[in-house]
Amino acid sequence: MSIEILSIGNELLTGQTINTNAATIAQKLLSHGFAIKRVTVLPDEPHLLKKGIEEAMARASFIITSGGLGPTGDDLTRDIVAEIYGTSLETDEAIKKDLIERFGSHLPTLEDQARLPKGSTVIRNPIGTAPGFILEGKAALMVLPGVPVQMEVMLDAVVAYLDQHSLKKQAIETLYLSLLSEQQVDPTLRELEKEHPHVEFGICPGYGILSIYLQGENPAELLALRETLAKKFASNVYSTTDKRIEVALHEWMVAEKKTFALGESCTGGHLAALLTQHAGASDYFLGSIVSYSNHLKETALGVKTLQAHGAVSQETVIEMAAGVKKLTGADYILTVSGIAGPTGGTPDKPIGTVWAAIQTPEKTFAGRVPLKPSVKTREIIIHYSATYLLATLYRFLKHHIEPFS
Amino acid sequence: MSIEILSIGNELLTGQTINTNAATIAQKLLSHGFAIKRVTVLPDEPHLLKKGIEEAMARASFIITSGGLGPTGDDLTRDIVAEIYGTSLETDEAIKKDLIERFGSHLPTLEDQARLPKGSTVIRNPIGTAPGFILEGKAALMVLPGVPVQMEVMLDAVVAYLDQHSLKKQAIETLYLSLLSEQQVDPTLRELEKEHPHVEFGICPGYGILSIYLQGENPAELLALRETLAKKFASNVYSTTDKRIEVALHEWMVAEKKTFALGESCTGGHLAALLTQHAGASDYFLGSIVSYSNHLKETALGVKTLQAHGAVSQETVIEMAAGVKKLTGADYILTVSGIAGPTGGTPDKPIGTVWAAIQTPEKTFAGRVPLKPSVKTREIIIHYSATYLLATLYRFLKHHIEPFS
Repeated sequence: MSIEILSIGNELLTGQTINTNAATIAQKLLSHGFAIKRVTVLPDEPHLLKKGIEEAMARASFIITSGGLGPTGDDLTRDIVAEIYGTSLETDEAIKKDLIERFGSHLPTLEDQARLPKGSTVIRNPIGTAPGFILEGKAALMVLPGVPVQMEVMLDAVVAYLDQHSLKKQAIETLYLSLLSEQQVDPTLRELEKEHPHVEFGICPGYGILSIYLQGENPAELLALRETLAKKFASNVYSTTDKRIEVALHEWMVAEKKTFALGESCTGGHLAALLTQHAGASDYFLGSIVSYSNHLKETALGVKTLQAHGAVSQETVIEMAAGVKKLTGADYILTVSGIAGPTGGTPDKPIGTVWAAIQTPEKTFAGRVPLKPSVKTREIIIHYSATYLLATLYRFLKHHIEPFS
Repeated sequence: MSIEILSIGNELLTGQTINTNAATIAQKLLSHGFAIKRVTVLPDEPHLLKKGIEEAMARASFIITSGGLGPTGDDLTRDIVAEIYGTSLETDEAIKKDLIERFGSHLPTLEDQARLPKGSTVIRNPIGTAPGFILEGKAALMVLPGVPVQMEVMLDAVVAYLDQHSLKKQAIETLYLSLLSEQQVDPTLRELEKEHPHVEFGICPGYGILSIYLQGENPAELLALRETLAKKFASNVYSTTDKRIEVALHEWMVAEKKTFALGESCTGGHLAALLTQHAGASDYFLGSIVSYSNHLKETALGVKTLQAHGAVSQETVIEMAAGVKKLTGADYILTVSGIAGPTGGTPDKPIGTVWAAIQTPEKTFAGRVPLKPSVKTREIIIHYSATYLLATLYRFLKHHIEPFS
């Protein structure tokens, strides 16, 4: 009675598109207790697609597919699935009516998109033109389109369908820690693993953060384990539900009715983008001066020290913070200036030199982001610095641990 | 003689981590002519992992795995692979020496990480502690760690290994178009498809862009096809190599020795983050004033019209552009202010109302981002607006098509 995901589309196999759909489906299902046993990515090629679907049907009882339902020539899922189930496509008049209402009767792909395998149960697509459907047989196939925003809203129907069957439910608990290495946590997990052989332990490092997840059939056991870990690493915990450190900071700021603003150089707007992705950011976030050029550091933020100390210096990030304070009046300010590479490094200030300041109503802290010498790619320097600094600020606000200490 | 990818790790099956590694591997290999036939994601569970690897070995001649080589308890790949190949793990003295040199002799996982299946060829990991390796037999297994930055640098060894075998090479050509819908391009592709039955045609829509890819064995045929399409959609083409519209803009700005700056409200730093991800952005990009609060629009950019017209208005984005010009002196300026939701919409200005201005040395254009009424999620409003505006500016610079016309 296992569940698998099939992601369909050449763009996933050429690497043109990253498979976010599989993660979206897995997260949603797991939040309802359904664990995924395998994800397979298949091409828009009739023979290989058919073979892949049939193999999954031999292994799993429930299969969720996404992709290959669109109006273009390389979309084959509907036909192949009908062939496998020994049925034909026929026009669904209700779907056709719905499409005409939403897109007009001149929709060029109307006839194609209104045809579904005979005997299937429709999953309405409220956003796009491609409906999804469920076909039952040797395995139950839940067929969804590949456009992420469409697929996502249709997942409720998948959950409702799975809920009708007596699948063994999995529970999951997560714990998110910042500013710790995998090696600092692993020995504790290994010990707990011995005592709890029926729980699956997972640990996954990110930039400056660690995600720990516990999976099993006994929710109380998982909750107790999570509490044990949360107690052991208390000053590193920032969430039990959300991996995003920026969300923890967001929630603290809103709860405490504080405001926050940024002055960014090397992170180049990345910090602001992280914060504003989250709905309601305007409740505490006032803005960011992304002073990428030295001139803008002077005109917008009044930085005066560039000649004497250079843009990547303790003096500059402290002056940037003062400039942001003057423009925004924010309670808390974070500024950052560094060398993200691949050029611009010097013997004194090699690539990966990143200075930052945190200004609170009481005090301004400044220090360097501790990047490992082996870490020199631009992407890592930007992303790690952003997460590290948000985690450092959060840890100070929540657990009173001094930044850069 | 096909090639498959196995991505190993529970975090991929729970959706905690998005599988970027498979896309990275596929892109790299395809750029060397090697096409991937399938991607499978397997759990950190001995029985299912073994079964999944064995199934892949029955289908494919070359298999690239990533994940499960770390120092923690849930990392099983090395042991399972040794079992499948009927060999044992033994300490590789060269690896051990290398690890001691880089991480010291007190590295707690030294003994574990220095053990490899007997008979395997080492792929050195220059960044982390987990070496990769190649095992030959019924299929050739190329085993890499799951940490993306480590995996990525080790791919050269995979390409070098595959190059030693006489695999049928695939050619690929790509073409990237902006500001067109899938339906506007598909009829042309369908016609060409009939004339070129041995070419695989793919089309993949993104926010405001379309990726077209052509795959086959005859490079000259693909190139000619790409040229036909590029001619037909000439004013929409922005690249034949890179999906990122911001890279096309970057290259134009650097080639023309022009400078660029931003004033962002609803995109919240997302535009700046896109531009600065790309190395060398400081050659043309001066910065962004992310004036998320109304107060910052006034203090940093001198916007005066908020009372009369509100922050989301033609007047405000034009004043924002004037303010950015004053602070930066940039040749080209883009500003944007809108309602990304999920709250803040009004009957007059519903969610998805996004105003933007493009200021050139000669003139300032202003207009609205054409978001479909069905598109109301915050993520889409932010991402689509960003791509649409960069594409609109690029199309004006390159093809002289007036913005918002």
